[in-house]
Amino acid sequence: MSEANLTNISELGEFGLIDELTKDIKTKNKSTVVGIGDDAAVLNYPEGKQILVSKDLLIEGVHFDMTFMPLKHLGYKSAVVNFSDMAAMNGKPKQMIVGLGVSSKFSLEALKEIYSGMKMACEKYGVDFVGGDTTSSTHGLFISVTVIGEANEKEVVYRSGAKPNDLLCVSGDLGGAYMGLLVLEREKRAFHANPKMQPELEGHDYILQRQLKPEARVDIVDALKKAKILPTSMIDISDGLASEVLHICKASNTGCVIDEEKIPIDQSTFEMAKKFKIVPTVAAMNGGEDYELLFTIDQNDYEKIKAIDEVSIVGYITDKAEGQRLITNDNQSFDIEAQGWDALKKNK
Amino acid sequence: MSEANLTNISELGEFGLIDELTKDIKTKNKSTVVGIGDDAAVLNYPEGKQILVSKDLLIEGVHFDMTFMPLKHLGYKSAVVNFSDMAAMNGKPKQMIVGLGVSSKFSLEALKEIYSGMKMACEKYGVDFVGGDTTSSTHGLFISVTVIGEANEKEVVYRSGAKPNDLLCVSGDLGGAYMGLLVLEREKRAFHANPKMQPELEGHDYILQRQLKPEARVDIVDALKKAKILPTSMIDISDGLASEVLHICKASNTGCVIDEEKIPIDQSTFEMAKKFKIVPTVAAMNGGEDYELLFTIDQNDYEKIKAIDEVSIVGYITDKAEGQRLITNDNQSFDIEAQGWDALKKNK
Repeated sequence: MSEANLTNISELGEFGLIDELTKDIKTKNKSTVVGIGDDAAVLNYPEGKQILVSKDLLIEGVHFDMTFMPLKHLGYKSAVVNFSDMAAMNGKPKQMIVGLGVSSKFSLEALKEIYSGMKMACEKYGVDFVGGDTTSSTHGLFISVTVIGEANEKEVVYRSGAKPNDLLCVSGDLGGAYMGLLVLEREKRAFHANPKMQPELEGHDYILQRQLKPEARVDIVDALKKAKILPTSMIDISDGLASEVLHICKASNTGCVIDEEKIPIDQSTFEMAKKFKIVPTVAAMNGGEDYELLFTIDQNDYEKIKAIDEVSIVGYITDKAEGQRLITNDNQSFDIEAQGWDALKKNK
Repeated sequence: MSEANLTNISELGEFGLIDELTKDIKTKNKSTVVGIGDDAAVLNYPEGKQILVSKDLLIEGVHFDMTFMPLKHLGYKSAVVNFSDMAAMNGKPKQMIVGLGVSSKFSLEALKEIYSGMKMACEKYGVDFVGGDTTSSTHGLFISVTVIGEANEKEVVYRSGAKPNDLLCVSGDLGGAYMGLLVLEREKRAFHANPKMQPELEGHDYILQRQLKPEARVDIVDALKKAKILPTSMIDISDGLASEVLHICKASNTGCVIDEEKIPIDQSTFEMAKKFKIVPTVAAMNGGEDYELLFTIDQNDYEKIKAIDEVSIVGYITDKAEGQRLITNDNQSFDIEAQGWDALKKNK
């Protein structure tokens, strides 16, 4: 679309803009009584359900780079990273409320792209879009998403329930999102050096998708339920395996052992890490943004967990006194340290 | 405190900062199962309660001006404006989740000031602080607050229930917050012109408080319940009486008549408006940020509403065909138009 055809959002005003962005939104879940359009959304959860609430902020220049993040993907990702928090509690996302702060350089069409990604995520995960607050910002774009979800009363899983000898499990594979980010950053630098250069993104579909269009592992929540496994603790992997396992150990007051050779790493992640001269394990331990689940289960559930696709046992829980250890392929033992993504330290 | 004693937030990192800000927070409400510290807060509302959820964004340079907004007041106000949304649904706030985006110029002590204002508001209104996400921003401060509240199942009041002949009621008085803002802006200009000048704020306590430390009218929700009045529609007045009454008329598919002489305006608002050469009614109709309640009641509740302090009947609801009219003191009739505060249009 040419620049001339874009609609300036300041022409619409706040209420006109919200009408325009939300007019086609319908709600479907039983727990949603009233969605967008009043001072608050109204929900009704039946007896026996615990309600889960989480919030994440995404800020331009800190959490995403608009030069390589398509707006639709940005909308999709900002919804999904919050859905992932629901999965991390062994629950399902049900409602979403979005706050957008946008500078006046944004067109209505650009905002519709972000919303279309969010709506696509809601559609895929069965979530109702029940509220939005859109306002101007003095600089850049920021997105604040609140998700409400549910879990059965006795099935909420916290970070704090791990106990010695529990098995440490990971869904999917790790490090891919970080490798995707490195490829995108490399191409951005190349573009700045020579704007005529075509970006070399071909053949990197998997790691780019891991970075640009992550998914929340609610399918693993379903698979665990079907297999009659209730994890003893769980967290989603947003900041890298190292940071997350330390959260579980701190909350559960335990130690842990992770076997390097058991960490699931996709072949394309492995190859790209080698190309960037990064040890693949480091990408998995500290890369972040994979949105896989890290959880612990009782040893007695070993046979059951083996039957679930896409779950790897990467180690086990120990007494706190034994510390948090990584055993490398050549049988050395290292303390696990969180060097993961940290938005505040990063921008020193 | 001298600059030298301030703690740079980048030294703490994200998790250290959140620990520091939230370590003394306790939860009290029965509906709060688990607050801060996991991937999501966990709530449990009993059968028969509707759950209300609302979100507001506050952005530096758009919604507040740090040159005259003390940080503690800012924290208090950002909580209270969300509590007000719960009152507008005839409910009570119960839990709050806060997202803060802060540039690295902020010290830990500055953030603690904001949090202390938020905690003070939670204490006063009986709300649990159940989650926080703090991250860096590239520019300035922004605050995203999500509040969860409750109302009895058959007592949720929407914007859409007004019907012809209902009485139109307003709590408290209007226009004061806007006059407070004009005083603060005047003193800021004077300060920029001559930094040695002392600000002239004395004698303006009421209107300054209306701007800097507004309250949510949950006391009116209680008074209505006690008087056995269930409003037919309700909204809180954040953008001025004109904008809000149009929201009610649009949602309810009605017209309305407001009598200018019935609009409650405090003496100090009135006098300051005259000084600024603003018609006081215009301040009340279009000023915004008063956070009073605008609601409609059945005519049969007339005697009951007269017994409630701090409620004024300002007009009544009509058929849609009669339009939305303001009858002035000299008996002229004007169309009501929303010229209220609109964050997106304002920054054209």
